[in-house]
Amino acid sequence: MEFTLTTLGTASAHPNVYRYPSAHVFNIHGRLFLVDCGEGAQVQLCRCGISFSKIDNIFISHLHGDHVFGIFGLLSTMSLLGRTAELFIYAPKDFASILAFFLSHFGEGVKFEIHHEVLDYKEPTKIFESKSVEISTFPLNHRIDTYGFLFKEKEPQPNIIKWKIEPNQLTLREMAQFKQGGDVTRDNGEILKCEDYTYIPYIGRSAAYCFDTAPFAKLPQWIKGVDLLFMEATFAENMAEMAKATNHSTAKQTAGIAVEAGAGKLVIGHYSSRYKDLNVLLDEAKEIFPNTFLANEGMVFEVPLKKLNDTNEE
Amino acid sequence: MEFTLTTLGTASAHPNVYRYPSAHVFNIHGRLFLVDCGEGAQVQLCRCGISFSKIDNIFISHLHGDHVFGIFGLLSTMSLLGRTAELFIYAPKDFASILAFFLSHFGEGVKFEIHHEVLDYKEPTKIFESKSVEISTFPLNHRIDTYGFLFKEKEPQPNIIKWKIEPNQLTLREMAQFKQGGDVTRDNGEILKCEDYTYIPYIGRSAAYCFDTAPFAKLPQWIKGVDLLFMEATFAENMAEMAKATNHSTAKQTAGIAVEAGAGKLVIGHYSSRYKDLNVLLDEAKEIFPNTFLANEGMVFEVPLKKLNDTNEE
Repeated sequence: MEFTLTTLGTASAHPNVYRYPSAHVFNIHGRLFLVDCGEGAQVQLCRCGISFSKIDNIFISHLHGDHVFGIFGLLSTMSLLGRTAELFIYAPKDFASILAFFLSHFGEGVKFEIHHEVLDYKEPTKIFESKSVEISTFPLNHRIDTYGFLFKEKEPQPNIIKWKIEPNQLTLREMAQFKQGGDVTRDNGEILKCEDYTYIPYIGRSAAYCFDTAPFAKLPQWIKGVDLLFMEATFAENMAEMAKATNHSTAKQTAGIAVEAGAGKLVIGHYSSRYKDLNVLLDEAKEIFPNTFLANEGMVFEVPLKKLNDTNEE
Repeated sequence: MEFTLTTLGTASAHPNVYRYPSAHVFNIHGRLFLVDCGEGAQVQLCRCGISFSKIDNIFISHLHGDHVFGIFGLLSTMSLLGRTAELFIYAPKDFASILAFFLSHFGEGVKFEIHHEVLDYKEPTKIFESKSVEISTFPLNHRIDTYGFLFKEKEPQPNIIKWKIEPNQLTLREMAQFKQGGDVTRDNGEILKCEDYTYIPYIGRSAAYCFDTAPFAKLPQWIKGVDLLFMEATFAENMAEMAKATNHSTAKQTAGIAVEAGAGKLVIGHYSSRYKDLNVLLDEAKEIFPNTFLANEGMVFEVPLKKLNDTNEE
């Protein structure tokens, strides 16, 4: 029941000795989702022991170089490693010409299909769904077409309350019906309500990725109640004007979004290279939203399982 | 009088936790020449303390991704750092469309001119000349259009033999004439031969860069007497067939080229990722050419000054 974020690159516009451009991985139930793919993403994936072959879905927030220059090397290496599984890349529409460029110049030998799923939305929209995960996207407020992503773990099937099985002589068929969420009507007309015989083992968790963006009014609503908010905090408050001019956020603004959204935890990144000591950003954020953490290269942030009161015990 | 090679990336087709794709810097008299620009070149430059602003000339051997994917990030960062100085990129002709792609998609704000100097030669050809350096290129034998580079330090001006100044009452004008290599004819008809009053302080050094290539007959002639040969050695000898099929060299073949060329020192790189212990490559090369060294990320190889017998002493 994994739900983690691994942060691979926390630099902003340009990397330095310590920091890579944006690229991060959400692992939800063992399924990996790469968000953004800055230069060096493939090396950082290696360093974090993340297998390329487990990545079938890549999400590109926007087409500034620091979020996409790593895609060429990653696709090439996937090809060299013999990949045949199809790959889905969710990216703004202009990514089509980037992909076409790659394929025409460096695509010889690429033996897997690459599907570009175009991001072009004005409102939050579901773009991916599997048995356990639902992913939606929403527009951000940056200098170019930019999208955030919300990763939601689906609610699991109800579990049978074990101690009720024997006294009520529940049959396998009846239990299967409960697992699907249905009530059971017995031959004698007795109705057994699903909710009386089952419990929800945990509540679906969620995480949002908001890079790069200035704060805007709708954002907290769109990520309401998110467990983990991973959002840019490029500047400290004394650079608020620069943040505004470049459509970025200050740490304080980002913390404000976390408060308004009622987020569980805030992780910040995308630091301007002017900050050698990041505590200025952390301190400013924590003043507004105490449960804030600094991302760093190779860190893993877990979104802990949210169990309900365990009604499975007698 | 610096003449060094800094090796930034010694991986072959794809990088790994330890190795970056090809990118290296020759420093000749403080002037920096970047050869190849694989993904992560800008980070490796930072790590080695090499200033981007000192790079005015970039040489791209060929257009396989592992030799060029770093150019996008490097050009972007140069732009972000406010570069205005023009930049020369020597690369095969198809680089034109790579550059055009970069400029049209990511070139907003690039305030420096980028000149693509097209490599399209069948024989060794001089492509760069400054006061102290001459650079020529020559075709290699790879799967696509690929070029090697020969960096030659120019012979310095002759120095005056100091102890001969006073006994011969050499005038400033006469010494200036000697420095230009000319003989002096005095008013009384006496001829003072330049060679009798001057000495060459050192012999021009040279280094060659040969990535990627299979060995071929003309190569040793083209780099005859080179002081430092930096050449790929992708495979060990038991992979000779693979080397042939992919137009690469084995360590033994590369050492053979060094012997035939009469090279002073051989540095090898571009290791296939199958070699965790590189000593198999080093040992095979040293058996043929003992003065062989393994390149590694961030290593500096000096080409020592070649002084002639010092005739400046009485």
